[in-house]
Amino acid sequence: MALNTFEKDNIRFMKAAILRAKTAAKHGETPVGCVIVKDGQIISSGRNKRENGKNALYHAEIQAIDKACKKLGGWRLHECDLYVTLEPCAMCAGAIINARIKNVYFGASDTKAGSFGSVINLADLPYNHKPVIHSGLLSEECSYLLSDFFKQLRCHKQMNKSSSEIKALPEQ
Amino acid sequence: MALNTFEKDNIRFMKAAILRAKTAAKHGETPVGCVIVKDGQIISSGRNKRENGKNALYHAEIQAIDKACKKLGGWRLHECDLYVTLEPCAMCAGAIINARIKNVYFGASDTKAGSFGSVINLADLPYNHKPVIHSGLLSEECSYLLSDFFKQLRCHKQMNKSSSEIKALPEQ
Repeated sequence: MALNTFEKDNIRFMKAAILRAKTAAKHGETPVGCVIVKDGQIISSGRNKRENGKNALYHAEIQAIDKACKKLGGWRLHECDLYVTLEPCAMCAGAIINARIKNVYFGASDTKAGSFGSVINLADLPYNHKPVIHSGLLSEECSYLLSDFFKQLRCHKQMNKSSSEIKALPEQ
Repeated sequence: MALNTFEKDNIRFMKAAILRAKTAAKHGETPVGCVIVKDGQIISSGRNKRENGKNALYHAEIQAIDKACKKLGGWRLHECDLYVTLEPCAMCAGAIINARIKNVYFGASDTKAGSFGSVINLADLPYNHKPVIHSGLLSEECSYLLSDFFKQLRCHKQMNKSSSEIKALPEQ
């Protein structure tokens, strides 16, 4: 089935978010990437940097919202849409509500922290703004990024453990 | 009734947060102030800067958490307590959960956006950390700061409106 322009754009923007998530993984961070779009153009992006940045606030969405506010010179992003590879946590969902972002597209669901449908849907509560939530865009690709990252992490840990055990063996 | 050291400290820290809120008001911002405490010492503080900073993220708690992470060199603030004059919104409540802050003391409740008891209590949901929430510390003083600020704002607007109307009168 042929995709219309709107659907093609959505896929293009989520693929741009996926690229940022892959960059996060290359830096040893849980792969989450985000872009913010206004008038059909990406105006800012972010990727998860919590471990290397040593900061609880350094989620992909927060980075992207910060840059978008600086770029547009105001705190209201009501003409903007946000694309993120993983369902936003409460902090990021709250930031999206505060920034008045119009539409949110996310890929993979997050059963542990997701706050636009999994643990709770903050967009359903009576805050002063309700973004429209679109879940599951390229969800398989976004989920695979995460499962592959954690699989590789477990392998590295196992290898390091085996290597330590070999070193700890008594000399013959 | 005499206060014990713990109660005296709590009041001292909330009064420090109130000072930051007053500074916010002097700059024309909704008066909200916050301090973060570790081992009985204030290690960081923040005040609302959303309007002048032109950024949706510039809430008092976010400023304080950002500084505390930078000061301690890590994203886990699990040995820290946070004092804030107004009940945190969803973004700030989420940031507090993400940063693993132990105790949260807030003054005034926020019926429109408060996310530790008013609109919802995010500390009751099954996220991977549950801060202990203490509401109503110096609540009258914190609430007065806000009501006084909005009262003055309305007066200024009324004066500006009257002044415009006088200017708009036809010359005699």
